[in-house]
Amino acid sequence: MKELRIAILGATGAVGREMMKLLEEYGLPVSELRLLCSERSAGKTLPFRGEEITLRAADETSFEGLDFVLGAVESDMSRRFAPAIVKSGAVYIDNSSAFRLEEGVPLVVPEINGADAFTHRGIIANPNCSSIITLLAVAALARLSPIRSMVACTYQAVSGAGAAGLQELEQQLADRAAGRELHRSVFPAQIACNVIPFIGRELPNGYTDEEMKMQNEGRKILHLPELRVSCTCVRVPVLRSHSISVTVRTERKISPGEARAAIAAFPGCAVAEDLEGRDYPTPLDSSDQDAVWVGRIREDLTGDGLNLWCCGDQLRKGAAANAVQILRLLWEGA
Amino acid sequence: MKELRIAILGATGAVGREMMKLLEEYGLPVSELRLLCSERSAGKTLPFRGEEITLRAADETSFEGLDFVLGAVESDMSRRFAPAIVKSGAVYIDNSSAFRLEEGVPLVVPEINGADAFTHRGIIANPNCSSIITLLAVAALARLSPIRSMVACTYQAVSGAGAAGLQELEQQLADRAAGRELHRSVFPAQIACNVIPFIGRELPNGYTDEEMKMQNEGRKILHLPELRVSCTCVRVPVLRSHSISVTVRTERKISPGEARAAIAAFPGCAVAEDLEGRDYPTPLDSSDQDAVWVGRIREDLTGDGLNLWCCGDQLRKGAAANAVQILRLLWEGA
Repeated sequence: MKELRIAILGATGAVGREMMKLLEEYGLPVSELRLLCSERSAGKTLPFRGEEITLRAADETSFEGLDFVLGAVESDMSRRFAPAIVKSGAVYIDNSSAFRLEEGVPLVVPEINGADAFTHRGIIANPNCSSIITLLAVAALARLSPIRSMVACTYQAVSGAGAAGLQELEQQLADRAAGRELHRSVFPAQIACNVIPFIGRELPNGYTDEEMKMQNEGRKILHLPELRVSCTCVRVPVLRSHSISVTVRTERKISPGEARAAIAAFPGCAVAEDLEGRDYPTPLDSSDQDAVWVGRIREDLTGDGLNLWCCGDQLRKGAAANAVQILRLLWEGA
Repeated sequence: MKELRIAILGATGAVGREMMKLLEEYGLPVSELRLLCSERSAGKTLPFRGEEITLRAADETSFEGLDFVLGAVESDMSRRFAPAIVKSGAVYIDNSSAFRLEEGVPLVVPEINGADAFTHRGIIANPNCSSIITLLAVAALARLSPIRSMVACTYQAVSGAGAAGLQELEQQLADRAAGRELHRSVFPAQIACNVIPFIGRELPNGYTDEEMKMQNEGRKILHLPELRVSCTCVRVPVLRSHSISVTVRTERKISPGEARAAIAAFPGCAVAEDLEGRDYPTPLDSSDQDAVWVGRIREDLTGDGLNLWCCGDQLRKGAAANAVQILRLLWEGA
């Protein structure tokens, strides 16, 4: 098969580094890997397959001769470079929210709507981390009966706010252990020994943009334009892996046993059976792997639905792994 | 007014100590305070209004000549001593779950159903901590329109598992900071930098007894025998104060503005407006005080309901404060 010439835009961030790791781990035949970054990090090196690759500052000419660009930058940077990437002929798989809801841009979780990836016009969007983790389990149920609505409450790890979020929790924990005063700059309140029920930017309806992603992206990924989702996003003092407690209402009532079998059979999902004696996952159980772990599958006592508890590594399946899996899907399908 | 002769059964635990603090803080005219404990702690002393009170081992003869006994022991101990307390003529206000659902035992949150307290036959039950904190906000909405159902996800502090739970988190955080191996014995998984979606004992329907309390106790406290509640209880690495994200469905649709006004006016509740610039509370904001703080009041996008975020100190309003408030209510009403 064809060898791959790939660039990672934003290689120094948590998601960019995870993408490098996965290109290696998945054994993709990468003949060229360009690591693109801001002016500030240019000249540094990062290891890939035993070699040191020198980071280059990204500009509009950085994308010539590539098959794929994996985007691991914020939306503004993604918008800035997307035209040059598309013009170069490379396929841009973008982890930012810049193009997710744009018409003509597929929003893809390979296990759910992989076929959508092949209709791209140069850009494919990688969904929000909590959306991917939740929807992977929900998609298994959608094969049994159409989904009417969802109520989701998240328990999101600090690394969802990038390396700076991780650093803030670690610093606060270290300061607390040493009896020093705690400082914050990334999160709107102390995160060590606390939870913060607010992620993102508030919209006129009182929800945050992060909370509305579950409905907006869910509609596009599941092909359910009427799907209604009430989401509450909460930051918790966990390093890695997001958890979501979700109540899913379906047209036809699905029993917990039926749901368990469907989720266990769905690619990318695993039903917890014996995690150190527990039949439910915690964020620590799901870290550093691609699988989304599901447990606490039970009847919703308020209507025709089910309750689920999902845990997934938001840097892996929630970001880098999903993006590299889209790349692999296109490469294998080419 | 009459002076009060009170005993605290289980004075050495976290809830018992908080009860002592509140008897002092509320300025109740306590003429005698008996501190009752297990054989193990007998002979120790605890300070009350500047004096040291000697702890006595509880037995069936410990309750003579008292007006009230505040119970801060587990259900089995509560069941053991309840007959002797009732026989002595003291009113038993019990924080355990032993008698909560028993017919003839009022289950009381003074701001919601204070009148129920006066129908007791010697025992009054103090509700579950998460139930009290959630229902206080929900009761404000129930005055506007009957509640049909609730979906609740909790973020429960480790001190809800008693002093041992608090100690386990602190030890794990200290061990982590020192680079030592982490150990656990109280919680079913590591709690430092993790969350655990399981509290209590699993029932045949897949819910835990802790989760079913929200429905069972909610029905009794709100006088809504048909109330349906889907609850997911999750332990988070927070020292003190439980948080609950709750979706409340009402007969008539209530607007967020109407709800905000009703909650702000409801005794015991406070709507967050400017907590260090935030209009939502975190557990740290609500610790060491009686008020239940509410924020993120917004329309439920899946139906005729509202979403709320509630934070309350589970040792204060969730346990000791509610019990002492029941005592005060009976004393003032006597």
